[in-house]
This record gives sequence, structure tokens and C-alpha cells, in this order.
Amino acid sequence: MSAEIICVGTELLLGEILNSNAQFLAQELARLGIPHYFQTVVGDNPQRLQAAVATACQRAEILIFTGGLGPTPDDLTAETLADFFQTPLEERGEVLADIRAKFQSLGREMAPNNAKQALLPQGAAVLPNPSGTAPGIIWSPRPGLTLLTFPGVPSEMKRMWRETAVPYLKAQGWGREQIYSRVLKFRGIGESALAAKVERFFALTSPTVAPYAGAGEVRLRLSCSAKSLEEAEAVINPVAQEIIAIAGADYFGRDEETLEGKVGELLRARGETVAVAESCTAGLLGSLLTAAPGSSAYFLGGILAYDNRLKIQLLGVDPQLIESQGAVSAAVAEAMALGIREKIGADWGMSVTGIAGPAGRTETKPVGLVYLGLAGPAGFSRSGEYRFGSSRGRELVRQLSAATALDQLRRLLIGA
Amino acid sequence: MSAEIICVGTELLLGEILNSNAQFLAQELARLGIPHYFQTVVGDNPQRLQAAVATACQRAEILIFTGGLGPTPDDLTAETLADFFQTPLEERGEVLADIRAKFQSLGREMAPNNAKQALLPQGAAVLPNPSGTAPGIIWSPRPGLTLLTFPGVPSEMKRMWRETAVPYLKAQGWGREQIYSRVLKFRGIGESALAAKVERFFALTSPTVAPYAGAGEVRLRLSCSAKSLEEAEAVINPVAQEIIAIAGADYFGRDEETLEGKVGELLRARGETVAVAESCTAGLLGSLLTAAPGSSAYFLGGILAYDNRLKIQLLGVDPQLIESQGAVSAAVAEAMALGIREKIGADWGMSVTGIAGPAGRTETKPVGLVYLGLAGPAGFSRSGEYRFGSSRGRELVRQLSAATALDQLRRLLIGA
Repeated sequence: MSAEIICVGTELLLGEILNSNAQFLAQELARLGIPHYFQTVVGDNPQRLQAAVATACQRAEILIFTGGLGPTPDDLTAETLADFFQTPLEERGEVLADIRAKFQSLGREMAPNNAKQALLPQGAAVLPNPSGTAPGIIWSPRPGLTLLTFPGVPSEMKRMWRETAVPYLKAQGWGREQIYSRVLKFRGIGESALAAKVERFFALTSPTVAPYAGAGEVRLRLSCSAKSLEEAEAVINPVAQEIIAIAGADYFGRDEETLEGKVGELLRARGETVAVAESCTAGLLGSLLTAAPGSSAYFLGGILAYDNRLKIQLLGVDPQLIESQGAVSAAVAEAMALGIREKIGADWGMSVTGIAGPAGRTETKPVGLVYLGLAGPAGFSRSGEYRFGSSRGRELVRQLSAATALDQLRRLLIGA
Repeated sequence: MSAEIICVGTELLLGEILNSNAQFLAQELARLGIPHYFQTVVGDNPQRLQAAVATACQRAEILIFTGGLGPTPDDLTAETLADFFQTPLEERGEVLADIRAKFQSLGREMAPNNAKQALLPQGAAVLPNPSGTAPGIIWSPRPGLTLLTFPGVPSEMKRMWRETAVPYLKAQGWGREQIYSRVLKFRGIGESALAAKVERFFALTSPTVAPYAGAGEVRLRLSCSAKSLEEAEAVINPVAQEIIAIAGADYFGRDEETLEGKVGELLRARGETVAVAESCTAGLLGSLLTAAPGSSAYFLGGILAYDNRLKIQLLGVDPQLIESQGAVSAAVAEAMALGIREKIGADWGMSVTGIAGPAGRTETKPVGLVYLGLAGPAGFSRSGEYRFGSSRGRELVRQLSAATALDQLRRLLIGA
């Protein structure tokens, strides 16, 4: 038993709008535990819509349509479906009355073409639209096949889905088992390296374990079908714990947790504060550290020392160090971290200096070369060299620099 | 002749990500004048992917795939396509060498499973991926059918599309009558207010003029179909010039031009420099000013004075001013701008202090209240009050604050 999503609208084929309806419905189907294996987008064209329906109804029992329910001539979902299943359209008096009443309540006259929205296939139940004029249908044109239609306007579609479609699907016995997922998040390890470490879990069927990667972050999704959250946790927890143990310090959080939130949590628990000295990131690290609400509990401030003169004047970096090692060097990063800690009186000082590109490289220092410094209590200080690659572009190098600096502090705070 | 888009990824079927790749490719195909009538989303499953390919290759001549090119066992686009068209996979030495070199440049060892990404169908051309390890292919498995594959990571996909796929498609004679567009960008005016000013242009058919809005920015897209850029410019230029004249200082740039790039351009032309003092944005303004390459010509640095103590110690703000007016006040914003200009020795000092929320509001100061300060040559200084709304969320308030600060400087520099 499975569902398919068919989104109707030439505006989708022109890329004028993002298909957020498909994402919403996909999430909802996943939550209800109704599998769906295909999504199709098709324009406002009856032949092509029929082709999409012909393909979909051979492989799914529930077809969910969005779009094409409006009053204009190019809205043709209802008539195309009626046509395909050789069923006549009939005007529904109660739907027409409802549309007319809605126009009246807005103090407007119903345009003649709105009457079209009251034409529904014979035998189809009305799927009411409390926030708009176009109703949908719930229709079984033949045994074992159910069609649901929704307008393309996301707010109308969502309300109709929640208020009518979900109770209907559950009453049919669908969606009793739901799918529960947990996302585990990792830093400082590549997708393939993590995959190699946890490869044996990929063969599991409950929970399933699947990797995916973002910029600098790798994620594993653990999913299972279950009747309740408790049942799901009993399936997911042991595997999650095993994976977290294998990943060690590379694991930093789950689901909605963020790297900056985690660092904030660790600092807050220790009652410690942090300050930043930034060169190439020029504020990105500070803005990341303060993205979490309540960050004033641990973030004091910082100095953006883009110009080398400011590294000397405001951070107290020895000019001879810059002269001999270069501003992009391990020694200068460390001096910047020590300088900002001292200057601002924070428990931790963090620094970034690097070559974000596209210009600025030297014979020995490529674009993407970044040094991150850390200074802390009891005279602690260190710096590390990172190569984020010369082909990744300025913005990504800067983002990876800021996130990696945060991750370095996180590792230190958890004692890794 | 038409194209189809097939997006591969179970994460799409689970609704974990929005299918922005489909929108991008749809826009690009529209721009190139290549019709496309169907989009399909399918999971990481060889049988279902084959079913999608079987359907699509009966009705389109160009199939564009995204996703499923990664190193893990559930990435199976290349092998599934090879299978479907009964063509063996072969290891490409040059691809393997390239992947290995990319890992080396990051100072990392290539994991054994990355070798999988070098296995391509016999006869397929490599579609190089300059920003990642997974290359795509351009492959005609039979006459009249061309397949192009891209990774699912949007930044990699887009670059590969622009740098290789578009020139390839054009060389094949596709996309001869193209749609040309120009996007005009505005700040400091709402979408409906701008629409009211330029309403009469919306009735044009060549170029068409359509508005759309982003966060704090309004855009008008002028589009026309033409055989060459010159022909298109003859159609678009006169209308664009009229609109720009109507919009006055609210217009700031076109197409890829950015607000920060524009400010940088203006500063560079005048040989002037800027420094920032940030409280609630905590580095966002600095990072925005330095997002443009070459920003070291005009950006010197700044101070993140998140903690009030730092506003006093590092920026020289009078503690009694903070006491009497509050840290979030016009007077403190102005003092911060004057302070940073003086401290760093820049031509311009900019400042931000505000309540980003969700906490921090007082009886008279709501979340979203922000003061922006500006100080410049010849004793110039001023500050302005902005209300970005208490329901818009912390991150959006911060982003609007930084962008509006930039826009204020832009208006000053153009003498508006």
C-alpha cells in the first residue's frame, strides 16, 4: 500500500515557485507511516496530467493531487480526472451555495467562472476548503484506488489536509503505524569516513540508518515504523547509542540541536565566557556564536582585526611576528586568541586568520588556508592549521572556518 | 524536443529537504527556452529509479538527474542508469586521480568507498565537479537521448550546470531562442508600494515585468524572448531605465549585484574606509561587508561590543549615556559609531544596537527595535530608529539590521 503525490501547475515547471506543498505532504505521509515512492510535477495540461495519472495509478493506491482547482480555464484537475476515469461531472448545489456565501461574506459578487469549482465527478465526496473557495474531492473511481485533490495555495491545502484528509485516512485504517526519525549530527569527519565506521548499521531494517552530508556537517538518519514514540525510542535508542559511542567526539548533537547551541550549552554549564578575534571571517564567528537566543550569558564581544594594523593595535600582536610569520600563520592566530582573551577579560579567546580568496594567496599559502587559535584558563593556548580547499569559494571557506573554530572549542570543552 | 527532471533521494520523499534543485533547473530550462513537462522525485531505490527512467525516456530527449552520486551504498544513480541501458561501468583513472587529489588538498586520506564515484558508464563523458568529489556524466546511451547527472548538493549542482551543462546544451543547438531576464533590486520600499509606482509596466508583454519580494529586498524581473543579448537589451533597457528613474534611491543594483558589493564599490571609488561597532548583530554587519572579494580595500575592522562594559571600555561610550538612555538607544548608537570611527581611524563608522529577541524587551522597547548609527568625515554623525517587528524572529531581525545599516551608508554615499 502506498501513496503518490502529483503536483499540477505550470508555475512549478517554470520554476516560479518552490514546491513546498510536496515537502509538506511528504513529511505528513512519513509521519503517518504511509509509504510514498514517487512525486510527479506536471503542468496545466490535460493530456500530460492524464499520462501522469495513468502511470501513478498502476503503482499506488492513494493519489494526492495539489493545484489546478481554481476558477480559471487552465485549472483542470477535476475535469481531467473525471475524464480519465470516464465519469461525468455534476454541479454540486451545496458547493455552489458555499462558494456564493464566501463571496458574499467578503462583500463581493461571485464571478461566473467560480461556478466551475462546484463541478465535481459523480460519486466523489467533497473535501471542504474552509479558507478558500475551491473544494477538493475524496474519490474512489474504482476499488482499491483513492484520489484526494487539494488547491495549490499552501495554507488552504494544509488546513484541508489536517482537518479532513488525515482523519479520513486514519478512519480507513491507513497511518496506524507511524515513522519516527532521529537525526544524529557529526563534525570533523567526512561522509565517507563516517560511513566506513558505521557501515554495518546500514544493513539494518529497523531502524534504517542512512547518511547524508551538508557543508562541513555529516548526518545519519535513524528511522523506524512504530505505534508510539515509546516503541520507536526502544528501537532507535540502542542503535543511536552504539553509533554515538563509535563516533566519539565527532558526534555533537541530534535533531534540532546546533553546533553553536551546543557550545553555548557547554559554556553556560561551566559559567564561562568567550570572546573572538576575527580576521578573514570578519564577524561570522561572532554572529554564529550569538545566533542562539540567550547568548549574552556567555558571549562578551570581540574585535574584527581585518587590517593588520588592528591586529597589532587592538589585539597586541607583536608586529615582528606578523613580519616574520605572516598575518596568516599559526603564531599570529595564537597571539590573536591570547590578545582577545586578555583584552576583553573572557575565559576563552578564539581567533581566525586565513585566506578566504579569491585573491591573497602567496607562494606557500594557498586560498583556503586558515589558522584557528584558542586561548583559555591557566595559560592554555594553541592554534591549528586547516585547509578548506582553494576551489570551494570565499563564502564557504569563511563559513567552514567559523564552524570549525566553534567545533574546536566544543571538543576542548568536552575534554576530547 | 523536451527535457525532464528526475530528482533522486529518499530525503526528498521523507520531506526532509525542499526540492530547490528542481526549481533551479526549471528556471534554467525556461531561461534557455528548453521545454520541460514533467518532474519526478524518486527514492534511492534502483527498481523505482529504473521505472522513472523508463517512463521519462519515452517522452523526453534530455533527462536531467540530481542526487545519488555520493560515495555511500545508497548512492546508485550511475550504476542504475548503466544497468538500465545495459552498459558496463568502468573505472575512470582521471576521475579517481582527481578525487584523490581533492582529498589530498584537504589534508585527508581518500576513503576506499570514494573510488565508487569514479565508476561511470562506458561511453559517458565526465561532467566535472569543481567544488566536490562526485562528478556527473553527459551520456547518450542511444541516439536522440541525452542524460546529464548532477550531485544533490545544490552549490555543486549549480556550478556544474552553469560551467559545463549550459555550454554543452547550447553547443547542441538547444536553447537558441532564449529568454533573457534582468532583475532590478530595491531596498527601503515595500513590494506593494513599489508595485503601485510601476503598475503600468505590468501590462507589458515584452519585456514582461513581474515583482517578487525577499527579506527586506524587493525585485522586479524584466524578461523577454530574443535571439541574442543585443536584441534582448534593446527591448529591456528602455523599460529598465524608466523604472530606475521612478524608483530613485530605492534602486540599488541589478542581477548579481549585491548591496554590500555596491557599498564597497562606492567606498572604493572615493578611496574611503569603514569600521563597524556591533552589538545585537555581533559580527553580521562585518561579515556582510567582507562578503565581497577585495573588501580589504575599504573594510578595516570593528568591535563586537555585545556586553555593555565593552561599549564603554572599547568604544568610549559614556556610561551615564547607557544608564540614562539604555544601551538600545539613538544616543548610544551614535556614540558607538563615533567611537569606532575614532578608535580605528576609518572614514566611516557604522553601529548597530538593538533587541533581536526573543528575550530583552522592556516596557518601552519591543523586540525588533534597532538603532543604527553612522559617523563620517567633518564631524558628521547621526542615528536612526528602526522597528523590524517582534514576530519576525531573532535571525531575521539581525539580518535586516545589518542590511539596513549598509543601505543607510549607500544612500549617504550616493548623496540621497
